[in-house]
Amino acid sequence: MLTAKFDQLVNQLRVLPGVGQKSAQRMALHLLTKKRPQGIALAHALDDAMRGIKECQRCHSLSDEEVCPLCQDPRRDDSQLCVVETAADVMAIEQTANYRGRYFVLGGHLSPIDGISADDLNIDQLVRYVTQSPIDELILATGTTVEGQTTAHFISEAVGRHVKKVTRLAQGVPMGGELEYLDSMTLGQALQNRSFL
Amino acid sequence: MLTAKFDQLVNQLRVLPGVGQKSAQRMALHLLTKKRPQGIALAHALDDAMRGIKECQRCHSLSDEEVCPLCQDPRRDDSQLCVVETAADVMAIEQTANYRGRYFVLGGHLSPIDGISADDLNIDQLVRYVTQSPIDELILATGTTVEGQTTAHFISEAVGRHVKKVTRLAQGVPMGGELEYLDSMTLGQALQNRSFL
Repeated sequence: MLTAKFDQLVNQLRVLPGVGQKSAQRMALHLLTKKRPQGIALAHALDDAMRGIKECQRCHSLSDEEVCPLCQDPRRDDSQLCVVETAADVMAIEQTANYRGRYFVLGGHLSPIDGISADDLNIDQLVRYVTQSPIDELILATGTTVEGQTTAHFISEAVGRHVKKVTRLAQGVPMGGELEYLDSMTLGQALQNRSFL
Repeated sequence: MLTAKFDQLVNQLRVLPGVGQKSAQRMALHLLTKKRPQGIALAHALDDAMRGIKECQRCHSLSDEEVCPLCQDPRRDDSQLCVVETAADVMAIEQTANYRGRYFVLGGHLSPIDGISADDLNIDQLVRYVTQSPIDELILATGTTVEGQTTAHFISEAVGRHVKKVTRLAQGVPMGGELEYLDSMTLGQALQNRSFL
């Protein structure tokens, strides 16, 4: 609209999730008029991350090195392995500070409708992981969508015999949840899985 | 959280307007897992724009060259000059396709509370512009905030004698506006400035 370089920047900003034409323009103008040095720093951080961040050879999460800090950390519990769909899930669980075991990232969930089969996920690598290292507990922390649950069952079948026990995340009422607004599936699960006070 | 390069990217993404920690993480993970080449292209476009885009020597809008395409365009009407606060306003007016004159960007509005006085805006440059080129109509298109209106009056005083007429944007009911939800100031202005059908 104003200049070729500006249009180029606006177009490229639209690759960011949730950013449309208007937000991209607003971002570009904000950086250009008020934050040029920060804009240049962002460009460098982006380039550095896109070229430098690899997949961890062990857990398939994101890493600057061949093996990620979580896999390298000697203080973590080798007997527990938490299987998640994406690196974002690793971050979410780490933020709870409630888990000290290892992770394994599948790279998605089974979804025949999108053409994602077991071969597209890191399931062979997971089988190799659990056969090479002795694991007591495999925690299935895939999503509670139909695809996530199907994936959990598939993994349980594939690797369950190599580990002592297979668990999955509790399903129930979320913190701060009002019962009257909760869907009946979740409420039903919460009732079924009720525990002693 | 996951890797140093990742944290760096998340921190830098937060410079974008409206992007907090969670959105920045989501953006970084989206680019890393699905759009690496586009992420690298974005980094290049950003760096290119931040280093390459200058202020137009004539209208003070954004430009790749010393003088911007709008100032260079021989088909535009030299007798009209539209004074706006920012380059974003130039884009907004260009998108209406209702104006074929020239622009002048002030670089903000007068705001004593933020310490922005006439010296911080391109007012001297505007006086020079209108004294060097003969202009019939100066259109004041600053915002309808108190600061924008004050700025408009200040400019009218400063350069009004060098031009044939000074106009400002019409104030009234916006398109698609329901009268009952409109503030009384705007409705009052719309009533005062009513026109023949």
